Amino acid sequence: MITVALAKGALLKESVKSFAKAGLDFSAVLDPDNRQLMIPSDCGRARALLVRNGDVPVYVAYGQAQLGVVGYDVLREHQMPVAHLVDLAFGGCRMSVAVKSSSGYQRAADLPPHSRVASKFTQCAREFFDDLDLPVELVHLTGSVELGPITGIAEAIVDLVATGRTLRENGLVEIEELFHSTARLVGHPLSLRLDRGHLQTIVEAMRHQNKKNNL
Amino acid sequence: MITVALAKGALLKESVKSFAKAGLDFSAVLDPDNRQLMIPSDCGRARALLVRNGDVPVYVAYGQAQLGVVGYDVLREHQMPVAHLVDLAFGGCRMSVAVKSSSGYQRAADLPPHSRVASKFTQCAREFFDDLDLPVELVHLTGSVELGPITGIAEAIVDLVATGRTLRENGLVEIEELFHSTARLVGHPLSLRLDRGHLQTIVEAMRHQNKKNNL
Repeated sequence: MITVALAKGALLKESVKSFAKAGLDFSAVLDPDNRQLMIPSDCGRARALLVRNGDVPVYVAYGQAQLGVVGYDVLREHQMPVAHLVDLAFGGCRMSVAVKSSSGYQRAADLPPHSRVASKFTQCAREFFDDLDLPVELVHLTGSVELGPITGIAEAIVDLVATGRTLRENGLVEIEELFHSTARLVGHPLSLRLDRGHLQTIVEAMRHQNKKNNL
Repeated sequence: MITVALAKGALLKESVKSFAKAGLDFSAVLDPDNRQLMIPSDCGRARALLVRNGDVPVYVAYGQAQLGVVGYDVLREHQMPVAHLVDLAFGGCRMSVAVKSSSGYQRAADLPPHSRVASKFTQCAREFFDDLDLPVELVHLTGSVELGPITGIAEAIVDLVATGRTLRENGLVEIEELFHSTARLVGHPLSLRLDRGHLQTIVEAMRHQNKKNNL
């Protein structure tokens, strides 16, 4: 039995579509009436675990799921020991530094040393500002990070931006991109090594399908 | 202008009710059509910040909000430097250890050493098992912790339990309580010290109202 960890939320629909093309039908998880968190595939050969974004690499790292789909942002932030297998190219967004549009800052290096920076992704933010050699105080928030500069708890934020609408609505502007993020297929290293072909077939199908999309 | 941090979710309705009795009307935050995260009170003397549970002590610790209402569980887990002012007595739940009902474990000390324990509250769990002198491996999950024992990623979980329905639905049973949690009024220590009576009046009204409830 293959177990696949899928992230609830924005990536779910496309994740199910990717697995469907590779022969595993998890469309039951998209049923709005579905309350189950562990759902068998249509063929009965596999099951999906429906978990929070940040928990996908945990289930895969511990081998409770052999495969998983999760954003690159989560992989960068949590650094769990999972194999990065395929860039699935959907769910594109960028991790960016944003400030109040009235602040006048043009790039991250303009921020005064020891500024406060609010983020859900403090690990990514820490690395970025360390590379700039700019000392900042990171404030870890778990949601609505765009409130940071408005309330004055932080001069800047580091957050995921897709359309930029939330930033605009809150008078914020992106000044620098840390990295671009897309959905990734990840795997449990030991399961991949012990695999007798089942996992490899799925991974290859998803890799191939993605190559086709990119042509 | 007094700023109050309120937690979205289960505590919100009762939090608004408590402040109303103390003279601050934030009922606009309960409007299902409300999309704003910063909402002025009816009298214009104060405003509410609508934030995630875990962010309430952050806004209060940094002084961006002078007062806040948040569960004791969050205060125990994050240990931010805020003043604990009033036990508001609503939002009661308990932090508990739970295991599969088929496991046969009767109390936490029955767990084999080096068991895996999944939790959103790894700090609380760490303290509890350290006090028991039982070495366990903590697995940090961000949601649906009840999946832990079902998937086999953990033998036990430490989680908040209100009615116990989620546990029962997942074949789990509570075996030990870490502590009981209720909503608490917290304050920014420096703002309280510099206060010229405005904050104190609200705190006293909420303390008094709560005493009456308990009689």
